[in-house]
Amino acid sequence: MNFASDNWAGAHPAISQRLLAASAGFSAPYGASALDRKIEQQFNELFEREIAVYFVSTGTAANSLALAAVNRPGGVSFCHREAHMLEDECGAPEFFTHGARLAPVDGDNGKISPDNLQAEIERFPPNFVHAGQPMAISITQATEIGTLYQPEEISAIAAIAKTYQLPLHMDGARFANALVSLELTPAEMSWKLGVDIVSFGATKNGCWCAEALVFMNPAQAKDLPFIRKRAAQLVSKSRFIACQFEAYLDDGLWLNLARHANAMAARLQNGIANSKHARLAWHAEANEVFAVLDQRRADRLQQQGALFYPWNPPRAKPGLVAGQEVLVRLVTSFATAAPQVDAFIELLG
Amino acid sequence: MNFASDNWAGAHPAISQRLLAASAGFSAPYGASALDRKIEQQFNELFEREIAVYFVSTGTAANSLALAAVNRPGGVSFCHREAHMLEDECGAPEFFTHGARLAPVDGDNGKISPDNLQAEIERFPPNFVHAGQPMAISITQATEIGTLYQPEEISAIAAIAKTYQLPLHMDGARFANALVSLELTPAEMSWKLGVDIVSFGATKNGCWCAEALVFMNPAQAKDLPFIRKRAAQLVSKSRFIACQFEAYLDDGLWLNLARHANAMAARLQNGIANSKHARLAWHAEANEVFAVLDQRRADRLQQQGALFYPWNPPRAKPGLVAGQEVLVRLVTSFATAAPQVDAFIELLG
Amino acid sequence: MNFASDNWAGAHPAISQRLLAASAGFSAPYGASALDRKIEQQFNELFEREIAVYFVSTGTAANSLALAAVNRPGGVSFCHREAHMLEDECGAPEFFTHGARLAPVDGDNGKISPDNLQAEIERFPPNFVHAGQPMAISITQATEIGTLYQPEEISAIAAIAKTYQLPLHMDGARFANALVSLELTPAEMSWKLGVDIVSFGATKNGCWCAEALVFMNPAQAKDLPFIRKRAAQLVSKSRFIACQFEAYLDDGLWLNLARHANAMAARLQNGIANSKHARLAWHAEANEVFAVLDQRRADRLQQQGALFYPWNPPRAKPGLVAGQEVLVRLVTSFATAAPQVDAFIELLG
Amino acid sequence: MNFASDNWAGAHPAISQRLLAASAGFSAPYGASALDRKIEQQFNELFEREIAVYFVSTGTAANSLALAAVNRPGGVSFCHREAHMLEDECGAPEFFTHGARLAPVDGDNGKISPDNLQAEIERFPPNFVHAGQPMAISITQATEIGTLYQPEEISAIAAIAKTYQLPLHMDGARFANALVSLELTPAEMSWKLGVDIVSFGATKNGCWCAEALVFMNPAQAKDLPFIRKRAAQLVSKSRFIACQFEAYLDDGLWLNLARHANAMAARLQNGIANSKHARLAWHAEANEVFAVLDQRRADRLQQQGALFYPWNPPRAKPGLVAGQEVLVRLVTSFATAAPQVDAFIELLG
Repeated sequence: MNFASDNWAGAHPAISQRLLAASAGFSAPYGASALDRKIEQQFNELFEREIAVYFVSTGTAANSLALAAVNRPGGVSFCHREAHMLEDECGAPEFFTHGARLAPVDGDNGKISPDNLQAEIERFPPNFVHAGQPMAISITQATEIGTLYQPEEISAIAAIAKTYQLPLHMDGARFANALVSLELTPAEMSWKLGVDIVSFGATKNGCWCAEALVFMNPAQAKDLPFIRKRAAQLVSKSRFIACQFEAYLDDGLWLNLARHANAMAARLQNGIANSKHARLAWHAEANEVFAVLDQRRADRLQQQGALFYPWNPPRAKPGLVAGQEVLVRLVTSFATAAPQVDAFIELLG
Repeated sequence: MNFASDNWAGAHPAISQRLLAASAGFSAPYGASALDRKIEQQFNELFEREIAVYFVSTGTAANSLALAAVNRPGGVSFCHREAHMLEDECGAPEFFTHGARLAPVDGDNGKISPDNLQAEIERFPPNFVHAGQPMAISITQATEIGTLYQPEEISAIAAIAKTYQLPLHMDGARFANALVSLELTPAEMSWKLGVDIVSFGATKNGCWCAEALVFMNPAQAKDLPFIRKRAAQLVSKSRFIACQFEAYLDDGLWLNLARHANAMAARLQNGIANSKHARLAWHAEANEVFAVLDQRRADRLQQQGALFYPWNPPRAKPGLVAGQEVLVRLVTSFATAAPQVDAFIELLG
Repeated sequence: MNFASDNWAGAHPAISQRLLAASAGFSAPYGASALDRKIEQQFNELFEREIAVYFVSTGTAANSLALAAVNRPGGVSFCHREAHMLEDECGAPEFFTHGARLAPVDGDNGKISPDNLQAEIERFPPNFVHAGQPMAISITQATEIGTLYQPEEISAIAAIAKTYQLPLHMDGARFANALVSLELTPAEMSWKLGVDIVSFGATKNGCWCAEALVFMNPAQAKDLPFIRKRAAQLVSKSRFIACQFEAYLDDGLWLNLARHANAMAARLQNGIANSKHARLAWHAEANEVFAVLDQRRADRLQQQGALFYPWNPPRAKPGLVAGQEVLVRLVTSFATAAPQVDAFIELLG
Repeated sequence: MNFASDNWAGAHPAISQRLLAASAGFSAPYGASALDRKIEQQFNELFEREIAVYFVSTGTAANSLALAAVNRPGGVSFCHREAHMLEDECGAPEFFTHGARLAPVDGDNGKISPDNLQAEIERFPPNFVHAGQPMAISITQATEIGTLYQPEEISAIAAIAKTYQLPLHMDGARFANALVSLELTPAEMSWKLGVDIVSFGATKNGCWCAEALVFMNPAQAKDLPFIRKRAAQLVSKSRFIACQFEAYLDDGLWLNLARHANAMAARLQNGIANSKHARLAWHAEANEVFAVLDQRRADRLQQQGALFYPWNPPRAKPGLVAGQEVLVRLVTSFATAAPQVDAFIELLG
């Protein structure tokens, strides 16, 4: 009953098999192999346009280099107050941009509110050097709390981005989970709505180490090869990232894995909704379920072998009874089995 | 006949098999798994002392974070003029240290000359803010040009490091190749000679992506967890780096792979020494052979399927006949087969 | 009727005269002159202990180098949401710390609330690399909105700083104004309350360019000489900063200038309190007065020659009638004359 | 007999008087005053084109921000091995460019050799991420060792800059001294020869703190306002830098001061040339004279009150008799008096 996080899962066998198969022979390093080229082409097809794609080793690297590519002196990027890049990347986005700031924007359900976004941007009058200058907007899809931006919500933010001529970045650490939930294509969930840059994560969804940074407009990425190398993110035997993507994208594997994870989350959510001993903190739309439990019940579940973490963002108050209740996060993945879910629900009672 | 570089090789089957075997099940991410712990313990045994070890995804990351760990404002690190960190890392060491400089030091055979080193350090009088302040010394073992520091040469540099209270770093991208050639243990080639930090590379010698940063004195690495995370180098499914090291270190595999690569280089060197159509630029001591060829013969060999690169460091002049001769680098690896070598030598004539 | 800002004032004649007098002769540059030494000694006396003091050219430099001196990878400093370093320094503090973050803390009257501060710090569990690590706390005295931390309020924050072993910095761009208002000595308003580092500003209070960075514990500043030089803040003819401080501190000039500025603010505040056409936004305690005016009256005052700026921090809502009222800031300085104030009040009606 | 450096001199009385006169009244801060505007216009006239000019507080700031304005990831700037920015700025240029490297280029007489420059640039093949990418070329006029680039020498370097599309920067800490020696106008010594950016120093030549960063092409400086503010170099009471320039440029004062300093250097050079106890290390062309003295005589001169520094760049070997002779630098300034020079020569014998 492991619901600790989707990165506790290993790698899908089809992906590991491909790694094994790719082991033999010689191949040009540093992204120059035929396989690298082939996968890059596949990304073009995936996004239905000529994009620029760069493989990196972590999601933090993808997010940080996305901002580094559009960096400006005194730059300020706007993201949700609970965004991963603000809460969980140890200042990497600021580090890779030499100190460009991440400005927190509030909004319900883990999503930036367009009104708040606009108000924050308006605090930076053009050419007012004291405040700094707006540089980018970043949204997370699916969000850190397992919710989704609906297409029209992305459009609303993209409209603001366009007004202020700011690139719009999407942290897609759980891109696939969002995609299958919304039943959109990659193009429909990105540039067709006005998204300029995507951190396309595959690690959480069945790869062991495969993240891609996708620029819809290759001109925006012209310095990225140098930025990536200087960031120590140009893996020498890059074919091994490429081959993970090859297996991942093959025959819709990635979508199936995401569908499975989401289905397990739905099953979990359903069970919790019907439990007398827990309530949902908010509606789960991807592969993360947040629930409010009695503290003692939570402790007992963990003693009985359920693995999950408390989640305590003090600002998204889900109305806990202080000292008695606890907010917990339950994450499912491609590797979550239905019996695990059922066992958990049964224990929960 | 692929002698382009050791990172053109894939991964050793034993290592890929271990990756496959490690795919199933759940495991704590971010370096917290039991396997991570086990391998860390194995590194202690390998180095015969309690060290601090951090896995990262590239050699450039290892080198850069080594310097970041000992960073000082206005800091200057001393390395050989042809060192990888100076010539081939796109300024990553400077980037990760926020601009600390790499000062080039000359020396024959790709090795820092202690006299030159001391003279360069002496250019920085204590507390003279204009010049900046010495911060570290870095040597490469095996060197970029396939030579080796003898133990007494390392000791001589370590003595200078000690005099000026500077940490001594070893870029060990080809640590194993040096080790088996010198018939030393890891402890004997590092801290017993005065080396403080080692970039312990495994990727070039049969892993697909496994680099370890080893601090002999764990106190020196106290901020490394934050430095690494902020550098986007904390891989989430870290068990997959750990399991590569597990297979790599198992039963001396790593030493055997290095011995094989070195033997192939020796076979190549022997062939070239006996050829009338090429001469050795200098004596190869690990897995890289540098030879001077007639330009037309080099072209013909490449047309016939031999893969290698010209090498043109204008400052290490091997006495080429301008316009006629070319200096080339031939690299062997765990994946090089003797018949490849023999075929090359035969074609060379 | 210039109430735009205290940096619209020029330099006090006594200070300019001293600059002129110091022009002749030769003097060791880069802080090494006898005068530099003398003023450093005077700072020791001023703070009643052996401190380390460094002259820089701007308040932004003082604040940024204060944080740079205590910098940590993944570091997070806590300051008020409306602090100058967060709102008005174009990201310099983040730049000089290579991306260490400024975390905004809320609190009434422009002052950090100890409870909010503690809650924010608690979001960073020890050794939790994802979040980063707390690095410093910074308060502004007088605050950006002309209020003052009372001694016991500073003590409360210092107690938190001590608990979490964080250095406590005071942005003293208007240090003198606070000092004379609270009737404290420099020691009483700083280290005796637990303040570790002070940005000691003199420019706004009558110098033309003289800022000092004061470390109560010189060991904390051991790298500052290199940090300052690398920051391009080591002025060559430093005697000219030193001589400004000489005149500034001579015979209590600095305190008299601050008393005058504060008295002018009090006079202004009094007039506004008695006006039917304006109300005070909050109580002014130093040399800045914030008032709410009818927009048309504000416009008319400006047409009649009064110089001041609207102030619009949307988060410190002073209860404006939207579309009709405006919040304005009125700053007095050593150069403000009583008749200017009276003329303004008369015009206000 | 003070020949220690030109920054040991104070400020010219005409400049200090102007500072005093500018002290009264109110004036827009941060470069927005009428006087700032007037001096900017004067710079346009001085350079005979519409330029962009930014005042900063140190020469190191001017040089560093020049490079920051043209910064590129993995960038490498080329300057002479003994350049001030490489030897005497504590890594500030690297710091302000987040680690962009300064590549040392050799050349006689303190001047970059065009051949060496081209060879160094050629080490960076286009789009070869491992090496990094060329970013700028910087020359110093007058050089660190008191020599001058002749117009045709600047043209030769500018031609290389053009070939590789690199901006050409001139460190003009002693711009005026070079100008009057070569009898050129500012336009003739800069953009008419292909120079793109000038650090226009005035501090060493009679101001107390006045440096200007001049971009011949204002578009290249579009981010400079943010770069400067973020660098803590936007002085609030900027009118006081502007008024120094006003006095400096008034009626050719700056050229007269430089002529005087150069004349004093020539007088010194002449005396040394005729001395039996010293010889010139090379020909002085501006306001710095380098001489080889017997060590004991040098010591005695210092005991007799002469102030100067030994100069020991080991790479520009002036053929010293080891252990007996010393290379010394003698700098003259606007404040050097002929009797001082004559007294020194007489003591030298």
